[in-house]
Amino acid sequence: MTGVAGTQGHGGVAGLVDAVRAGEVDLAALGESMHARMAELYPVPRSLTGDGVRATLDLLDAVAPLERHSVPTGYQAYDWTVTDEWSLRRATITDADGRVVVDTDDHTLHVVGYSTPVRATLSLEEMRGHLHTLPDHPDWIPYRTSYYHRRWGFCLPHRLLERMEAGEFTAPYDVVVDADLGPGELTWGELVVPGETDEEVMVTAHLCHPSIANDNLSGLVLATELARTLAGLGRRRWTYRFLFAPGTVGSVVWLAQNVEGRERIRHGLVLTGLGGPGPLVHKRSRRGDREVDRAVGHVVARRGGEQRDYSPWGYDERQFNALGFDLPFARLSRTPHNEYPEYHTSADDLSYVRPAELADAFAALLEVVDVLENDATPRNLQPHGEPQLGKRGLYPTTGGQAANEAVMAMLWVLAYADGATSLVDIATRADVDFAAVRHAADRLSRTDLLA
Amino acid sequence: MTGVAGTQGHGGVAGLVDAVRAGEVDLAALGESMHARMAELYPVPRSLTGDGVRATLDLLDAVAPLERHSVPTGYQAYDWTVTDEWSLRRATITDADGRVVVDTDDHTLHVVGYSTPVRATLSLEEMRGHLHTLPDHPDWIPYRTSYYHRRWGFCLPHRLLERMEAGEFTAPYDVVVDADLGPGELTWGELVVPGETDEEVMVTAHLCHPSIANDNLSGLVLATELARTLAGLGRRRWTYRFLFAPGTVGSVVWLAQNVEGRERIRHGLVLTGLGGPGPLVHKRSRRGDREVDRAVGHVVARRGGEQRDYSPWGYDERQFNALGFDLPFARLSRTPHNEYPEYHTSADDLSYVRPAELADAFAALLEVVDVLENDATPRNLQPHGEPQLGKRGLYPTTGGQAANEAVMAMLWVLAYADGATSLVDIATRADVDFAAVRHAADRLSRTDLLA
Amino acid sequence: MTGVAGTQGHGGVAGLVDAVRAGEVDLAALGESMHARMAELYPVPRSLTGDGVRATLDLLDAVAPLERHSVPTGYQAYDWTVTDEWSLRRATITDADGRVVVDTDDHTLHVVGYSTPVRATLSLEEMRGHLHTLPDHPDWIPYRTSYYHRRWGFCLPHRLLERMEAGEFTAPYDVVVDADLGPGELTWGELVVPGETDEEVMVTAHLCHPSIANDNLSGLVLATELARTLAGLGRRRWTYRFLFAPGTVGSVVWLAQNVEGRERIRHGLVLTGLGGPGPLVHKRSRRGDREVDRAVGHVVARRGGEQRDYSPWGYDERQFNALGFDLPFARLSRTPHNEYPEYHTSADDLSYVRPAELADAFAALLEVVDVLENDATPRNLQPHGEPQLGKRGLYPTTGGQAANEAVMAMLWVLAYADGATSLVDIATRADVDFAAVRHAADRLSRTDLLA
Repeated sequence: MTGVAGTQGHGGVAGLVDAVRAGEVDLAALGESMHARMAELYPVPRSLTGDGVRATLDLLDAVAPLERHSVPTGYQAYDWTVTDEWSLRRATITDADGRVVVDTDDHTLHVVGYSTPVRATLSLEEMRGHLHTLPDHPDWIPYRTSYYHRRWGFCLPHRLLERMEAGEFTAPYDVVVDADLGPGELTWGELVVPGETDEEVMVTAHLCHPSIANDNLSGLVLATELARTLAGLGRRRWTYRFLFAPGTVGSVVWLAQNVEGRERIRHGLVLTGLGGPGPLVHKRSRRGDREVDRAVGHVVARRGGEQRDYSPWGYDERQFNALGFDLPFARLSRTPHNEYPEYHTSADDLSYVRPAELADAFAALLEVVDVLENDATPRNLQPHGEPQLGKRGLYPTTGGQAANEAVMAMLWVLAYADGATSLVDIATRADVDFAAVRHAADRLSRTDLLA
Repeated sequence: MTGVAGTQGHGGVAGLVDAVRAGEVDLAALGESMHARMAELYPVPRSLTGDGVRATLDLLDAVAPLERHSVPTGYQAYDWTVTDEWSLRRATITDADGRVVVDTDDHTLHVVGYSTPVRATLSLEEMRGHLHTLPDHPDWIPYRTSYYHRRWGFCLPHRLLERMEAGEFTAPYDVVVDADLGPGELTWGELVVPGETDEEVMVTAHLCHPSIANDNLSGLVLATELARTLAGLGRRRWTYRFLFAPGTVGSVVWLAQNVEGRERIRHGLVLTGLGGPGPLVHKRSRRGDREVDRAVGHVVARRGGEQRDYSPWGYDERQFNALGFDLPFARLSRTPHNEYPEYHTSADDLSYVRPAELADAFAALLEVVDVLENDATPRNLQPHGEPQLGKRGLYPTTGGQAANEAVMAMLWVLAYADGATSLVDIATRADVDFAAVRHAADRLSRTDLLA
Repeated sequence: MTGVAGTQGHGGVAGLVDAVRAGEVDLAALGESMHARMAELYPVPRSLTGDGVRATLDLLDAVAPLERHSVPTGYQAYDWTVTDEWSLRRATITDADGRVVVDTDDHTLHVVGYSTPVRATLSLEEMRGHLHTLPDHPDWIPYRTSYYHRRWGFCLPHRLLERMEAGEFTAPYDVVVDADLGPGELTWGELVVPGETDEEVMVTAHLCHPSIANDNLSGLVLATELARTLAGLGRRRWTYRFLFAPGTVGSVVWLAQNVEGRERIRHGLVLTGLGGPGPLVHKRSRRGDREVDRAVGHVVARRGGEQRDYSPWGYDERQFNALGFDLPFARLSRTPHNEYPEYHTSADDLSYVRPAELADAFAALLEVVDVLENDATPRNLQPHGEPQLGKRGLYPTTGGQAANEAVMAMLWVLAYADGATSLVDIATRADVDFAAVRHAADRLSRTDLLA
């Protein structure tokens, strides 16, 4: 087992975070392992629905056992109607000499998602309106979908189109989209790791994108790894629910199906784009000051990352944060979608995503969970001046020297532990890791200075 | 008619703002027209009171019909007593050879405002205490007044004084201030453009400065042009009251005379110094967070301008914002008084003020009015997740590409339209023009997604 | 008498601040005088308790008469127990040839504070664990104490240790710590300058450090000088209590002994490290927004100093601000402890501390006291527009020119004097000295415009 859950037998995530901080966890191997899992998932022809989604859930299930759910085509979830199911077998463009010019067996991005089945022989001019390229990145294949408007299309490198225009191939072309498009189901997976209460931390990663690595195989493998890790811990304060669903409509369907369940969500986190370069980025919830914002904000700040205010563009945080639900969902990513040129192209591939960044993101996730699990608002039991730490063995016996970090963390906790201020806020104020403040609170509790 | 009111027949200021944004309004011609109007106003010998004020009101009346008001000398307005009326015919300094050295027929700034009538023959030494110059800007004439202390004086270029000192002219000098100074009246003009409610937006521009272009002929022509434009629109939410009064005492008198009327003021705006170079500057109201501040703040920020906190120095915003009235008056200007060397000198002339800046300020004013007229706090009627914009024709049918500005503006409105958040605040938060958010709200309303 | 108390006979601290601002106080002489006082205090072998503390109080008493207080060894103050008393006579290391290698008669820092008495003949190796040096600053003697763990030790320049290691001296060494360590008392001094109310401003400076100039002879002489000055004034709003006590335990003991007295503290100020280079630094109280924070913050900002948030490390502000007391204590210093290399070494000596910085800190202290004494929340009695200042002789009679600072300060006061906004907040908002706003308020009160 390459995961980290086995590296510490007892206790909760705190011990694991401490082990990571102490260098006792082989993060490099973990990063490689997650990257290998992405390589398995990469060629599966995912879309909003269909066989690719189910095959993806099969692969994730092998890491941590999933529940599967579905609703049929036509299901009404608030303003959304579940569309037909689409399963691609293969889509090709073949020239008159029988040369296969474009083939989804080479890359799942070659077909516009939800293309209607077609078999036709067409000139290049007749195909034009169905061909999508990126002239600015002529070697990349763009990612395009048409879920709600019936059409077919192919995506290809602009250079290939230029070769077609130059007459390198022989017109007319045989165009084939071999796919099923009709009534079926919308499918998603859930993974529940129970805790001491049935109040939940919900972690979501969208699974509708085809062969795109950072967006969002990175989110899928990180969430699965986190689920497996948390399941291996001895104790969890919260119940953790992982949702692997197609973007937008998948989340809206889940919310419609779980009117009571969604009331149990205390903290929510959307994971996407975590394997590419660039610093960690915390996108705040819509309200911006939820507990999950303070947790993610603290961890990301300590790691030199960026904080961004909510905007109504992005991933499923838009659905959970919508006014009618108003759930506290933050998002954790690296360089956000739209801000790197490889976004939504074939260049967001397995080489764009690196094991080290995956491992680093995983360590950050553990730290976020540590805050969610272990944050508290303790009270100083000896508030009349600083307690005499020295007589409890908590203070250096030689005076005159600078305080060390452990002592400072205890002093910060004692100074602000008024029963209403949380440890993560104290850590942020003190500019130290939450783990240091958690340790300080533990030591003070053990010496009856804190409750 | 060079104005813009005729360029759109129906609807309110929103259509006009949209036309300006679409390049359908000839702003260049409008700027020239306003500049030409300033040229007519420039030579009139304005002061706190008197014939110059009345002549100025005559000229403004030709653009948009005014009501005239006055109170007599001795009128008590709170702490202020209306002083004598002063009307200048001509003031000259003539040397012993009959050469006219200084002449208000050349420039109205040559005489200290409210100079007492005088006829005397004096040596240069005897005149000294009565002569004002600017040694640092030796070619400019300073602007000086003495409304409440009886004295006489002349303002002249420092170089001219040096020539007098060098003996270029022949002493003694005949000094003549031919003016009336005695009981009379303080005069002002008002222009009311009625709207759907009798609650008011009040726009003021002081009219007491003589031949100074930016301060405040620019404010006078912009306010008049705005009045004429608003009168030509089919619909106005608010009643607009334009006040053209002498600075400080004029506003205090208006406030004393309109104890009930001032209660109807919902938003106030002082216009001054809008034709010179430099970015637009929003001076906030005293409290700093009024609706007018959010409107002006938004427009000025979008145009790259500056925001400044209130200070008790400047123009008539000081009177309206005073603690006893506490009215929400912001000020719109360019480079504020005191921050450009030409301020209160003859160098603030018609060449200092440019048609393009006037036109730009006018466009900004229209945008401010657009916010005041059309801001609202709508409510998302489909708040459970993002509504499916695509089925309403509001969303591109091909997925995978970046959202366009119009879609983004709709998403912003949907995300924050909780019935308490205003559109201008959403626009500021989203970093887009108010007009884009207004359009988004219109489209959403028409598809029953917003109310 | 070199002090400044005598330079103005009447009135309170305001007159003195004005005299300093007018250049009528010989600050240079005052700085020299305070520096000379530090030179007297420098060689006294201070510690947490003992003869050195009492000798220090004797010297301070000569400047301004003190009350002395003490509690016996074993006294329990909340979590703290008063330790034994320690009085050093002399500590030496002598080599086998009778050469005195280390001697507290040369420098009181040579012995670890609270060293147990010892007489022994030891090799260098046997002494090793008892010798403290600073390898990075080989010519400096470190400052070390061991109040609560019984041990002995010597502090010496690292170069001297190297010479011992090089065999320049002849082993074995005679080690002598000639000190009394046993039941006794913890001693402190208080100095009370009564005012119109028995509510108090408390100023503290720790007196437990031996021959270290900036930390905290600077605080001691500044506090004493301030006490003497305030006692010489005709009027004080508050009662001023100066506390000269050993750090940490001294303050906790005071707080335990003065359960009722501490309720009278309205503002608190800790003085330390005020004679070195670097700008003034305001360390805010724990809550950060107390009146004393606004006073010290204003003065320090006007003087180009720094503002720092509270942290639970430093001096006795930690005890007074502790959750159980929650008293509003700010700290005034220059470059904080730990941020200059000389901190807690022999290099923090009389040459590190300069008369000019002491004098400047004293002037700042007077300004802080001016705010505490004279801040108020007056009400504008003529709030309907700006009052006509000219008819009261408060405004220049010639218009058109820029307002001077005195006029501006009056306008700021009139604009914000709503009966709830304090003068220091107005001064901060207006970006002018508190004294200018105080003068403006005085002038407006005298003309019945303010109450």
